[in-house]
Amino acid sequence: MRITGTFLDEISHDIPHQNWGPGEWEKDFRAMKAFGIKTVILIRCGHKRWMTFPSKVLMGKKQGFTPPADLVALFLQLSEKYGMDFYCGSYDSGHYPWQDDYQVEPEVAFMREVCDEVIDRYGSSPAFKGWYLSQEIAGKSPAATESYRSLGLHLKQRMPGVKIMISPGMLGAKAYNAKMEKLGVTIAPELHEAMWKENMEKIRGVVDIVAFQDGHVEIELLPTFLKINKKLCDANGIECWTNSESFDRDMPIDFLPIKWEKLRLKLKAAEAAGLSNAITFEFSHFLSPYSMYRSAAGLFDRYCEENNIPARAKDFL
Amino acid sequence: MRITGTFLDEISHDIPHQNWGPGEWEKDFRAMKAFGIKTVILIRCGHKRWMTFPSKVLMGKKQGFTPPADLVALFLQLSEKYGMDFYCGSYDSGHYPWQDDYQVEPEVAFMREVCDEVIDRYGSSPAFKGWYLSQEIAGKSPAATESYRSLGLHLKQRMPGVKIMISPGMLGAKAYNAKMEKLGVTIAPELHEAMWKENMEKIRGVVDIVAFQDGHVEIELLPTFLKINKKLCDANGIECWTNSESFDRDMPIDFLPIKWEKLRLKLKAAEAAGLSNAITFEFSHFLSPYSMYRSAAGLFDRYCEENNIPARAKDFL
Amino acid sequence: MRITGTFLDEISHDIPHQNWGPGEWEKDFRAMKAFGIKTVILIRCGHKRWMTFPSKVLMGKKQGFTPPADLVALFLQLSEKYGMDFYCGSYDSGHYPWQDDYQVEPEVAFMREVCDEVIDRYGSSPAFKGWYLSQEIAGKSPAATESYRSLGLHLKQRMPGVKIMISPGMLGAKAYNAKMEKLGVTIAPELHEAMWKENMEKIRGVVDIVAFQDGHVEIELLPTFLKINKKLCDANGIECWTNSESFDRDMPIDFLPIKWEKLRLKLKAAEAAGLSNAITFEFSHFLSPYSMYRSAAGLFDRYCEENNIPARAKDFL
Repeated sequence: MRITGTFLDEISHDIPHQNWGPGEWEKDFRAMKAFGIKTVILIRCGHKRWMTFPSKVLMGKKQGFTPPADLVALFLQLSEKYGMDFYCGSYDSGHYPWQDDYQVEPEVAFMREVCDEVIDRYGSSPAFKGWYLSQEIAGKSPAATESYRSLGLHLKQRMPGVKIMISPGMLGAKAYNAKMEKLGVTIAPELHEAMWKENMEKIRGVVDIVAFQDGHVEIELLPTFLKINKKLCDANGIECWTNSESFDRDMPIDFLPIKWEKLRLKLKAAEAAGLSNAITFEFSHFLSPYSMYRSAAGLFDRYCEENNIPARAKDFL
Repeated sequence: MRITGTFLDEISHDIPHQNWGPGEWEKDFRAMKAFGIKTVILIRCGHKRWMTFPSKVLMGKKQGFTPPADLVALFLQLSEKYGMDFYCGSYDSGHYPWQDDYQVEPEVAFMREVCDEVIDRYGSSPAFKGWYLSQEIAGKSPAATESYRSLGLHLKQRMPGVKIMISPGMLGAKAYNAKMEKLGVTIAPELHEAMWKENMEKIRGVVDIVAFQDGHVEIELLPTFLKINKKLCDANGIECWTNSESFDRDMPIDFLPIKWEKLRLKLKAAEAAGLSNAITFEFSHFLSPYSMYRSAAGLFDRYCEENNIPARAKDFL
Repeated sequence: MRITGTFLDEISHDIPHQNWGPGEWEKDFRAMKAFGIKTVILIRCGHKRWMTFPSKVLMGKKQGFTPPADLVALFLQLSEKYGMDFYCGSYDSGHYPWQDDYQVEPEVAFMREVCDEVIDRYGSSPAFKGWYLSQEIAGKSPAATESYRSLGLHLKQRMPGVKIMISPGMLGAKAYNAKMEKLGVTIAPELHEAMWKENMEKIRGVVDIVAFQDGHVEIELLPTFLKINKKLCDANGIECWTNSESFDRDMPIDFLPIKWEKLRLKLKAAEAAGLSNAITFEFSHFLSPYSMYRSAAGLFDRYCEENNIPARAKDFL
């Protein structure tokens, strides 16, 4: 099981910024290419008042901060140059489907407006192949699936042939609460299956790819959960990918690159479960030779060795 | 708005040490110079039993640990060589004005004694231009302003023409309690103004420069707070600087270099508020090409690009 | 007091992995050699389902994860090549003597079985000189001392002349609870002495070396505690070493390299107390030129300068 996609963590919630300019990003795309990345997924095009591009909608309606660079334009240009598919993440308002005061209608209407602006500005790029719906959920969530359905249908109308992806969590022992404390409670696989059976039936025909985050579940339980995911996706005509997280959830420092052995086991579990593809959150901090965390270079090398990829981190420095 | 000053974080409370010797410090001063630093501020000359110089007072009365190097001498020598103004931070006993058992008289008397020793040893250096009063407060604090006044007057007697600086916090949503937990409560700007009106009236004529820490306030509220600071300083004949923090307060890791976009917005807010100068906490960990955190090099480059400074981090390695 | 030994932190509990392969490990052993390391101590040969070597026992009885590399073989080969003594850490099941449901008999029986497998596979290596009993305790613990005694006697039967080491904590103000929160309670030195008097009497004749971790005790109290340790070891014919931790327990980031001044004071305290040897937890993350934490290189250089060792970190990169 190869990792063929990565998130681009802009706007970051919780991973410190590397402060890269266009030159550093181009180097990183070159390293991604050598590593085997074919798909890059901008995790969200905007977050509260922060923006990845100079959005008139966000500046007008959210008092958005004018960004120092147009990252959507940059990432599209690099995707074209390096032959990658670009997925754009939808706007993240800071209101989430699992909150009591979340309202589907106005949230979707506003996300749609931002997406429309993105399509108007960048939709003609040949690298623009998909949308990532950035609202992350874990368990059952009618508000989320209704949002996905409504926004996804709109995007498919505007961009025929576009792919729609989500990357939900699983309610494992390493799920976190809002204060970054581990919950330490794993739901039964049967409950996970029941909740996602309902979710998937609601999003079928709209969401094309579901890539569950694989880091919340203890590694020994991962095969069980992944097989459930695969079965549910198959039953609903959805592609089942894995989001094989490359950061370590078991350490006091939240978050540094994962131990290679863990990433390897997670990818093997995904392969054994018959999943079709792996993406990761994310290459630039946790797998890149250019990462601010030096251990990412070791992870890059171990992965390349195992998969007979000739690239080595030192060749990029 | 250019950053023209930086703290030197010795003795550090909460930022891991880089273990630099004189050679590494000299390289860093060279990078500071290229970046535009004109003022270096030793955050405290001693902290509890830890000392930046072999203080007889602290060894005798606090069982101070004899330090492996004389950092005050080193920093003064480098300041002279690189044409910078050196501000010395006063002793930090670990007793603070906002604690119930804090007593102004003995605290000031002891700080004065340590300051006198510093002046006797190093006062003749032509780079020694100021004192930083290291007791950090946020809201209203009669015990602190009385301490500032008393210690500051003494220092001005001993060193005619010396500048006195403080760098208080603002009670914003990102203020921390003792256990490094964010308080999440922002006081109204009007309350901040009322508290600091009183504080400033007490320190006028003694404190020359107030450089509020800008990281506790949400960026959207920062312009409002900075304008209040400027107005109050102007009314009391005090220079209003900003301490534009270069570490990120929004991440699970306390603390890594800030996102460039945030630092840029904070500096723009200070410029718009009419502040006269910016310092930062601090260059060596969060902005330096030599920082243990590799993302500091990106921050250095982005800042230099924006301000047409020809220096680039790679040229220093 | 020189540091002549280091732990190898495999399998790590709480320090993020550097993702080194055999090439990186060999470089690190070369740096260790230049630094003065003569003894390397694998902290545990297995932890729950994680293994440092392909153990049939653990695969069969604990569903152990087959590791991507045989680290015991690698470390022994490097120890032979660089003339170091290798100590192997016993298996860590995740059950600890201070837990209510810990049972000495079955725990020791299982540890013995894993140790036997290690001896059968690797016991003939001329570098294999000792065992490290990996169950860490702090205060009085009859269950632990009984386990040490029972397992240690078995190991000495199987490998005549082998050395047995433990590295307990001291119940100082910086001891941590399970959630990595500092306890902030220091027991009186007299209580420490009373508890360890009992412990040592139980392990005498079996445990050869006790190397207390020196990081839980405030530095001002360390001389007192170390002298007690020395006295108790002497009374029981046990070698008294210090485990002088090279990571900083005083910072919000758990854990980065310690400030050189602190490590220096701790080593001086050990020397003054008459201890015979120092090891550290651990070289590769906190002292190595190759560490993912750049400040480790500064610590390496400061230590080498102080001890007239010609090696410098930059020569290794």
